[in-house]
Amino acid sequence: MSNDGAGRNGIALSERQRIAWLRLIRSDNVGPATFRDLINHFGSAETALEMLPELSRRGGSTRAIRVASTAEAEKELSAAYRFGARFIGIGEHDYPPALRQIDGAPPLLAVKGNAAISAVPSLGIVGSRNASISGAKFAAMIARDVGRAGYSIISGLARGIDTAAHRASLETGTIAALAGGLDQPYPPENIGLLDEIIEGNGLAISEMPFGWEPRARDFPRRNRLIAGVSLGLAVVEAASRSGSLITARYAADFGRLVFAVPGSPLDPRCHGTNGLLKDGAIVTTEAQDILQALAPLSRIDLFTPPQAEEPGEHDVGPMAPPSENDRIRITDALGPTPVEIDDIIRHTGLSASAVYLVLLELDLAGRLHRHPGGLVSLNIGE
Amino acid sequence: MSNDGAGRNGIALSERQRIAWLRLIRSDNVGPATFRDLINHFGSAETALEMLPELSRRGGSTRAIRVASTAEAEKELSAAYRFGARFIGIGEHDYPPALRQIDGAPPLLAVKGNAAISAVPSLGIVGSRNASISGAKFAAMIARDVGRAGYSIISGLARGIDTAAHRASLETGTIAALAGGLDQPYPPENIGLLDEIIEGNGLAISEMPFGWEPRARDFPRRNRLIAGVSLGLAVVEAASRSGSLITARYAADFGRLVFAVPGSPLDPRCHGTNGLLKDGAIVTTEAQDILQALAPLSRIDLFTPPQAEEPGEHDVGPMAPPSENDRIRITDALGPTPVEIDDIIRHTGLSASAVYLVLLELDLAGRLHRHPGGLVSLNIGE
Repeated sequence: MSNDGAGRNGIALSERQRIAWLRLIRSDNVGPATFRDLINHFGSAETALEMLPELSRRGGSTRAIRVASTAEAEKELSAAYRFGARFIGIGEHDYPPALRQIDGAPPLLAVKGNAAISAVPSLGIVGSRNASISGAKFAAMIARDVGRAGYSIISGLARGIDTAAHRASLETGTIAALAGGLDQPYPPENIGLLDEIIEGNGLAISEMPFGWEPRARDFPRRNRLIAGVSLGLAVVEAASRSGSLITARYAADFGRLVFAVPGSPLDPRCHGTNGLLKDGAIVTTEAQDILQALAPLSRIDLFTPPQAEEPGEHDVGPMAPPSENDRIRITDALGPTPVEIDDIIRHTGLSASAVYLVLLELDLAGRLHRHPGGLVSLNIGE
Repeated sequence: MSNDGAGRNGIALSERQRIAWLRLIRSDNVGPATFRDLINHFGSAETALEMLPELSRRGGSTRAIRVASTAEAEKELSAAYRFGARFIGIGEHDYPPALRQIDGAPPLLAVKGNAAISAVPSLGIVGSRNASISGAKFAAMIARDVGRAGYSIISGLARGIDTAAHRASLETGTIAALAGGLDQPYPPENIGLLDEIIEGNGLAISEMPFGWEPRARDFPRRNRLIAGVSLGLAVVEAASRSGSLITARYAADFGRLVFAVPGSPLDPRCHGTNGLLKDGAIVTTEAQDILQALAPLSRIDLFTPPQAEEPGEHDVGPMAPPSENDRIRITDALGPTPVEIDDIIRHTGLSASAVYLVLLELDLAGRLHRHPGGLVSLNIGE
């Protein structure tokens, strides 16, 4: 993704680079996709940060973009250090390899605990907060058996199934993905469990800033993180329209295996899981069902960097800004309907590099919507 | 199958023919496949009966074959009539159309009750005898909803799931398949239920002789009958290695849809059903799952007679017996390994008609094994 110090096991960020990355991802209108495009275009976070105000202005923003300061980033970083946590950049050795493959992977992941287990292939286990006794028992059984087979278990530290899965994999290695900052665990009754995880063989991860209190809308993003880290996701008891089904949807979108535990049609806690089975999830009644399906996947070397991240593939450094004419042609080509960037390039006949740059400008001006699958649309009336 | 009085809705047997059919199927070494071949070869049961002793002798039997007498058949028939039952020949109007399609369909089916419902498309519902409360409740729900949608429900009159399915479809139409004669229902506590079925809108069916007390080995055959009559089979709670799984295996072999109700992996009563789901059974949590899958099938006109049953396709009447040389060539070509009859024809270069006739002889001499899929092998050392 960047020419910032790439090594055999991925890149290794200097502290100065890490601060620049943190500043960039904490700045306004910079999400993971924009972050990636900025680094790809300008070669480093530091150059991108310098360019932000001008890009946003060229994109049509009438007020100055808020760029996170070095002081702010240093403050967050030292808070993390004091807490015993640190930030891992995408492409760095300890960054979960499966997570790196997804669209919109967080550029920086806050972690606390034994980060080495993030390199181990992981099974996600999620399910109802108000799990039945047998549901919790089953989740524990799966977590224990799959854990002993050499996988880490990732879940969301929630009540019920999540709790059972974490507890049963404390010894073998468990990862708790948080919806807020690492210092803001939820729910309160699982703070003790989180301590056990971190002091044991486990790891806590979050893509949210330190001190961030989780709101309802942050949980789907946490679910996306679980699906992203997992090679496969096992859903044990889930009601219709539950968060676990959101996680399963993400997992399917990422091409991960989805396992569902069958249950009585008369128990509402099984409506979601039975629905997943109807949609083609793998029927799971014992750990062996999961291990058999995951075995071929866990042998794939996820650390092989994708082609697009080779240094030779990058646009490097700043270049002449696109002409006002180019900018108008691209903006005119866009509308409220999501389109592929390749279609914009074909439609306008402009260079890919010019199109990406104008899209970055619009993005930083808050005028671009990014959609799953790399599609973009224009914010109308904002 | 026969040129015995074919009509627009299939054949209609005269009483004399019916007695001949009953004699033939009750004679030694005559199972459904042999019955079919005899009728196809000799054109009528009466001619076949005349030929039985000679065929058996030519096939190498050292003692005379037991041929059921007219008196025996008349006695069984009048016992059935006194009981309010009757025998329906394969191809007759009231014979269950789906059952007619299977290999080894019973030539005569004993029925008591409203035989008209056998023409209605049928769903089989089977499951554990020691069903859970929720399993029985679910079976009843399915039976009621699918019954109301215009299907008959067939089951095995057993305790548990079968009982729940029959009771819930008493009004809409239910079929009890028995492992013994119609006058030998099992288990005793369901005799009252059987009376309700017959006095209501239902039907009892059996392929076994009147007065036959069911033994353990007759139940798989009863299960085969359930699968044969059904367009689809729903399995609600079934332990590993249970009778319901035998029924499901038959249903799959017959190309019928298999529905399985998911259940907790921790409940042994769900091990069989979850296993069926792993093998590709349709996940079933409500009647709609079944109705949607069956809808296209139930529109197929199962009464269309298969091509092979057209009169022009038959060998008609007796013909010169095969030469001793032909008989030796065919016997030599056979061994303990099941082979296809077409392969015997190709291998020996003899006419199909000669091969079928020699196989009939061997069969009636008790020297032939018939296997699923029309394969045959020689009884060695019997």
